[in-house]
Amino acid sequence: MSTESFVTVSQNSDFPIQNIPFGIISTAEKQEPRAATAIGDYALDLSEIAKAGLLDQIAGLEDPVKVFSEPSLNTFMSLGRPVWRETRLRIQKLLSKDEPTLRDNSQLLEKALIPLSSVKMHLPAQIGDYTDFYCSREHATNVGIMFRGKDNALQPNWLHIPVGYHGRASSVVVSGTDIRRPAGQRLPAKDAKAPVFGPSVRLDIELEVGWFVGTGNKLGERVEIKDARDHIFGLVLVNDWSARDIQAWEYVPLGPFLGKSFGTTISPWIVTLDALEPFLVDGPSQSSPEPLPYLQEKQPSAYDVNLNVEIKPAGSSKFETVAVSNLKYMYWSITQQLAHHTVNGCNLRPGDMGATGTISGPEKGSFGSLLEITWSGRDKIHFENGVERVFLEDGDEVKITGECKNGQYRIGFGECSGKILPCLYAANQ
Amino acid sequence: MSTESFVTVSQNSDFPIQNIPFGIISTAEKQEPRAATAIGDYALDLSEIAKAGLLDQIAGLEDPVKVFSEPSLNTFMSLGRPVWRETRLRIQKLLSKDEPTLRDNSQLLEKALIPLSSVKMHLPAQIGDYTDFYCSREHATNVGIMFRGKDNALQPNWLHIPVGYHGRASSVVVSGTDIRRPAGQRLPAKDAKAPVFGPSVRLDIELEVGWFVGTGNKLGERVEIKDARDHIFGLVLVNDWSARDIQAWEYVPLGPFLGKSFGTTISPWIVTLDALEPFLVDGPSQSSPEPLPYLQEKQPSAYDVNLNVEIKPAGSSKFETVAVSNLKYMYWSITQQLAHHTVNGCNLRPGDMGATGTISGPEKGSFGSLLEITWSGRDKIHFENGVERVFLEDGDEVKITGECKNGQYRIGFGECSGKILPCLYAANQ
Repeated sequence: MSTESFVTVSQNSDFPIQNIPFGIISTAEKQEPRAATAIGDYALDLSEIAKAGLLDQIAGLEDPVKVFSEPSLNTFMSLGRPVWRETRLRIQKLLSKDEPTLRDNSQLLEKALIPLSSVKMHLPAQIGDYTDFYCSREHATNVGIMFRGKDNALQPNWLHIPVGYHGRASSVVVSGTDIRRPAGQRLPAKDAKAPVFGPSVRLDIELEVGWFVGTGNKLGERVEIKDARDHIFGLVLVNDWSARDIQAWEYVPLGPFLGKSFGTTISPWIVTLDALEPFLVDGPSQSSPEPLPYLQEKQPSAYDVNLNVEIKPAGSSKFETVAVSNLKYMYWSITQQLAHHTVNGCNLRPGDMGATGTISGPEKGSFGSLLEITWSGRDKIHFENGVERVFLEDGDEVKITGECKNGQYRIGFGECSGKILPCLYAANQ
Repeated sequence: MSTESFVTVSQNSDFPIQNIPFGIISTAEKQEPRAATAIGDYALDLSEIAKAGLLDQIAGLEDPVKVFSEPSLNTFMSLGRPVWRETRLRIQKLLSKDEPTLRDNSQLLEKALIPLSSVKMHLPAQIGDYTDFYCSREHATNVGIMFRGKDNALQPNWLHIPVGYHGRASSVVVSGTDIRRPAGQRLPAKDAKAPVFGPSVRLDIELEVGWFVGTGNKLGERVEIKDARDHIFGLVLVNDWSARDIQAWEYVPLGPFLGKSFGTTISPWIVTLDALEPFLVDGPSQSSPEPLPYLQEKQPSAYDVNLNVEIKPAGSSKFETVAVSNLKYMYWSITQQLAHHTVNGCNLRPGDMGATGTISGPEKGSFGSLLEITWSGRDKIHFENGVERVFLEDGDEVKITGECKNGQYRIGFGECSGKILPCLYAANQ
C-alpha cells in the first residue's frame, strides 16, 4: 500500500489514508443513510464502492452491498476483527496513489467521492445500550475533593473497579445536533430542605472517548481481558453533557439519571483500533493495589490521543480552548472496561457503546469538565472581549477534537460539537 | 361484545376475554416470531387473523398483516392508544361467543388458535432502553434501615423524586430463560480493605412490575403527567435479579451496575392499560410533602394488582409462596415515573421499558426481595421438608404471578419465572 492517496489530503486533515474511519452518511441526492469512509475532505460512499464489486472477495464479508447499504454499521461490526481489518486494508489499497482501479474510474468516483461539506452525518450505529465509566483517576479525585474533601476523595472501590453505570442510549446524538437545556429538580441552596423546579443553572460538559462494541458476547459468558480488544470496533469522541444541579439532587443512591439523559454527543466517524495501533502506549501504573487477575493487562493498552475542548460563547465568533487532555491519562483502559463489563455475564451486542468517563489530566489546563475547570463555579473562565463563564449559557457552542501524531503522519477524529438551546420550561412549571 | 368467548376459558385462567394481552410467539411449525394474544389456554396468532382480513378497517392500522407479522410489537406500540384500543375491541368481538366470523371459520381457527403448551414465547418488544425505578416507600425504607439505620432510612430526595436509574436492556430475558449466577468483585467481610473475586453469594430477586412505552416523545420535549397514560402500552411482571454483594461493593457513587446487569426476567404477555382500567384505585397519599406541580396526579393512578412470589428450592418438587404484595402499594405511580423520566427532555421510544423497583407492602409477608424477607440474611426462610434459604442457591426456581379481580372476572399476567444455573467461574479466577 502506498502511504499517499490519489485524493488530495492536506497536512492538517483528520483523514489521511492511514485513518480510514467508518461512518454513516446521506446526501441531498440520495437520502438513504449508508456506510462511508472519510479521506481528506471527502466521504467515500462504501455502498457505491461495493456495488462496483470493489469490496468483493473479502473473507467473511459475504454481501458487501447489503452490509454497506444499511443505515447503521451494526452488521459490519458483528462480522469481527479479521473482516474489519481486511476491509480497511482493501479501502486503503483502493485509495492509493499507485492503484488505478478506483483512481481511473471517473464514473464511479463521480458517484462515490463526495465532498464532506455536502454530506449529512448520522449516528454510526444503532446503539443498543450505552455504558458510561468513571475511569480517570484525576477526574474522580477532583470531584471527590469537591464533594467529600481531600481525605475521602477516592471511594474505597475506585482503585479496584473500573466504576461504571448504565447510560441512556436514546439520547445519544451525532455531532452538530443542538442540545436543549434540561429542566428538572434541584436544591435552591446547599442546605435547602425542598427542591425547586426549573431550567438547570449548572450545565456542564464532559470530555470523554467512546468505544463501540464490534462482536458481542453471550449472556452468561465473560470476555477475557486478553480477547477484549478484538471485541472493540473503534473509538469516537464524546461530550456527555451534564446538569450538575439536577445530578447532585437525584444521584443518591442509584446514580446519575436525568442529570445526564437529556443528551450525549458523539463524533460521527469511528476510528478503528487498527488505525490507532501505532499509538498504543503504557497506561498509568497499577501496582498499588494490583487489580484482580481478570483485570490485569499484559500489554500496552492506553492510546496516545490528544484531546482538545473549545467553547464559543454565545455572541462570540471564535472558539477558544478551555482544556487540553489526553486519552492516555485514563487509569483504567478501555479493554479493562470491557472485561469488567462482562465479568458478571452481561452480554454486549454489536453497536453497544461504552465511554471512558471524563478524561482529566494532572494539571488544571487538562481538566475535562467545567465543574473541575472552574472548581465548582469558584473560578471564572475568561474568554476574549471580557466574556466570562462558569457553566454553559444558552447559545454557547462546545467543540471537542482529537488527534494522534507520530513522526510520519497525523490521524484525527473529526468533530464532536453541539450548541445549547434555551430550556422550553420556566421555573415552577 | 359478549363477556364470554367461544374458546373455553376456565375460572382460573389468566386470559379471559376481558384481558386480551399482546405478545410474540413462535411454533415448531412456523418459527418466525409474530404477534399473538392469549385466550384461555390458547394463543391466537394475530398475523393469521390479519391475513384473513379480520383486522382490516381499524383507523390508523394501515397494514395489519405487516404489523403483526413482525418479530416485535414495536411498530404496533408506536401507533398510539386509539389503535391499541380499537384493535383490542376488535379481537374481543372476534372471540365472542355470539360472533360467528372467527368462531365458524374452522380452517382459520386450525391455523390461528394454538395451545399455549405448543407455543414458544419471545420478548414482546425490542427494548431500546430499560429504566428501573425505586418507587416503593416500604422497600426504600427497609433497605435504608438496613444500610443506614432507622433515622436516615429515606434519602432526602426520596419523597420528592421517583428515584430511578438506567438499567441494562440487553440482558432483559423472557420468562423461562435460565439465569446464570454472576461472578464479580465483593468484599469478603464488611470491614475488609480489599475485594475478592468469585460467584455471588447473595443472589436475590426483586418483585417488580414493568411498563412498556407505546408512543414516545421527541428529545427535548417532556410528557405532561395528564398525558402520560396515553404513552404507556401496558404492563408485565418483572424479576430484577440482583447480586447484593456485587452491588454493595460497586454502587457508590454511580449506582447499581454489574449487580443487576446479568439478567432481568419479564413475563411474556403485555397486559394493556385498557384491560387494567377497571382496577384503577387511589395510590398512597402524597400530601406531606406535596410533589412539585409536574408530578401531581389529578386522577386515580394506582393499579390493584395482587402479586405473588414463589420459590421452588433445588431438589424440591413444589413452589412455595414467600411473598404476597400488591402494585397499589407503590408510592409513585407509573405515570409519575414516566412524567419524571421525560421532564429533562429525555426521549422515550416505542418498546422502551420502565420498571417500578421492588414492590414491598407494609408487612413482612409482603416484602418483594429476599434482602428484606430475611432482613439481610438474618432470618431464614423455611420451606417444606426442612429446606432453608437466605439467598438463592443453584437450581432454585422463582416464579412471580399477578392478578386483578373484581366481582365479575379475573385478569392474570401469566408467569415470570427463571431458574438459577451455577456460575461458570470459580473464586479468584
